[in-house]
Amino acid sequence: MHEQFNFAIEVLGTIAFSMSGSFAAMQKRLDPFGVLIIAFVTSVGGGTVRDLLLDIPVFWMHDLLMCALIIITSVISMVFKSLEKNFKVTLFIFDSFGLGLFTIIGIQKGLNVGIHPLICIGLGTITGCFGGIIRDILLNRIPLIFRKEIYATACIVGGAAFLLMTKYTPLSYTFIQIFTILLIVGIRTLAVKYHWQMPKFYGYDQTSEM
Amino acid sequence: MHEQFNFAIEVLGTIAFSMSGSFAAMQKRLDPFGVLIIAFVTSVGGGTVRDLLLDIPVFWMHDLLMCALIIITSVISMVFKSLEKNFKVTLFIFDSFGLGLFTIIGIQKGLNVGIHPLICIGLGTITGCFGGIIRDILLNRIPLIFRKEIYATACIVGGAAFLLMTKYTPLSYTFIQIFTILLIVGIRTLAVKYHWQMPKFYGYDQTSEM
Amino acid sequence: MHEQFNFAIEVLGTIAFSMSGSFAAMQKRLDPFGVLIIAFVTSVGGGTVRDLLLDIPVFWMHDLLMCALIIITSVISMVFKSLEKNFKVTLFIFDSFGLGLFTIIGIQKGLNVGIHPLICIGLGTITGCFGGIIRDILLNRIPLIFRKEIYATACIVGGAAFLLMTKYTPLSYTFIQIFTILLIVGIRTLAVKYHWQMPKFYGYDQTSEM
Repeated sequence: MHEQFNFAIEVLGTIAFSMSGSFAAMQKRLDPFGVLIIAFVTSVGGGTVRDLLLDIPVFWMHDLLMCALIIITSVISMVFKSLEKNFKVTLFIFDSFGLGLFTIIGIQKGLNVGIHPLICIGLGTITGCFGGIIRDILLNRIPLIFRKEIYATACIVGGAAFLLMTKYTPLSYTFIQIFTILLIVGIRTLAVKYHWQMPKFYGYDQTSEM
Repeated sequence: MHEQFNFAIEVLGTIAFSMSGSFAAMQKRLDPFGVLIIAFVTSVGGGTVRDLLLDIPVFWMHDLLMCALIIITSVISMVFKSLEKNFKVTLFIFDSFGLGLFTIIGIQKGLNVGIHPLICIGLGTITGCFGGIIRDILLNRIPLIFRKEIYATACIVGGAAFLLMTKYTPLSYTFIQIFTILLIVGIRTLAVKYHWQMPKFYGYDQTSEM
Repeated sequence: MHEQFNFAIEVLGTIAFSMSGSFAAMQKRLDPFGVLIIAFVTSVGGGTVRDLLLDIPVFWMHDLLMCALIIITSVISMVFKSLEKNFKVTLFIFDSFGLGLFTIIGIQKGLNVGIHPLICIGLGTITGCFGGIIRDILLNRIPLIFRKEIYATACIVGGAAFLLMTKYTPLSYTFIQIFTILLIVGIRTLAVKYHWQMPKFYGYDQTSEM
């Protein structure tokens, strides 16, 4: 059941990321193959960078099912463009759950090969966030993550909570995992609902650069 | 003869990619070393990403000849800037042949290490297209491939034809290869001649983002 | 003493790169975690690409101290924003020394695994420059290195001098290393002082693209 739970969340997360990539690409008026490529890198980008950094096999190179899922989701997004409007909330929830699970998967894969826990939080953040970063770079806009949302922050807080709980509490792994995912989803939801933003560096009017 | 044919096409393709990178960089008024770096990543970018994904040695790390070829081509492009105007058609043909062969090389390298054929089409597309994508990202413009040309489309169609023919027909490998390259060159040439474009998602006027 | 010298320079270089990333990110009004991520990639980006290309373990995955150093430096930069104004010259010197040492480290790591010296100059340049390139891509501006400064040029000239001296002179390794770093620092300092620039390709008014 534990495995099935993970698999279900990963599928939902991948679907959400593929949709988010497809919609962003359509807004930029790319052609269908462009949309497909953007959907793909949004979904697999974070995990790919993580696997390259860990020097382990890149996960999607042997996972035809995942590739098919991304492509099918992207095609459906193109056919039913209006999905975005109607399923906005659903998509946001999928995306947040995916972000939570992807963060945990990143941390876990790092721990498996003996990386220090603090660096693993970075790996988790990379897994969760880099797909969206690469998507925004390809679409030539400043990565959304750096501008608006409590996104990386949620990953880092969630990742830290996950590590502290696995180390210092006797709680079961599954419980900790679910708690972490809900924490990340909760932070993002509250942030959007109450317009939380991290403080920014206003009044920084220097134009000189090193 | 088969090997020599491949080698000749690869050399021509590399020259074309190096020139295309050099001219794009000069248009953005980079200095000579900037032009050199852009020429280099345009030529080797796709193959580098492919080799990293497959976890095989990055091809140009041990290929001094290829590196020298790229540099020399870039220097020649800088000295004879007007080449672009006069050899536009030649360059387009080189570029298309290179694209075709690079796609096939990507597919072949993937098959060699046991990747599923469908994922190999993706690898072929990456090999053909990512050099140009990285070039455009470094020059801070939205990747050309996503905007205008039948480029990725040609790779995907050509790659699919290549795989179907190797699997289901008794034709010789060399014949299939030549046919695939000509198919990719043909699609691109006809697309440019008759202003083919993939349909885009006009009327998508939403400005909201996930 | 030789090791300690290297370590000290590497620490100073990392601090400088982390500061340069932090200040650039604050100028773009990113939130604190965004600033942290930019500081991180600026510091480790070049070495990461180098290690991926060489297929050796990514250096910071097992170097908690280096990660901590980058984060602490970035936090200090955020707290004392005015540091940039007051320590501009200091930062420039750190940055140049770091650039010099990073270039040499890149060359040395390449030679260690049997890469041809000429390709190693490229590796050194990548180690020195790619952190700043990735920083600028993430902040959606055309990489500074391609526009203004004698940066890659200093790496390439310094790297070539380093290789020629190790091969053709009986000078001690430490001496050659110090000389190379001072050469790179010197080129950059003189370039800034006297407004040296590489010639650019003005008068290139074609707007057509391949």
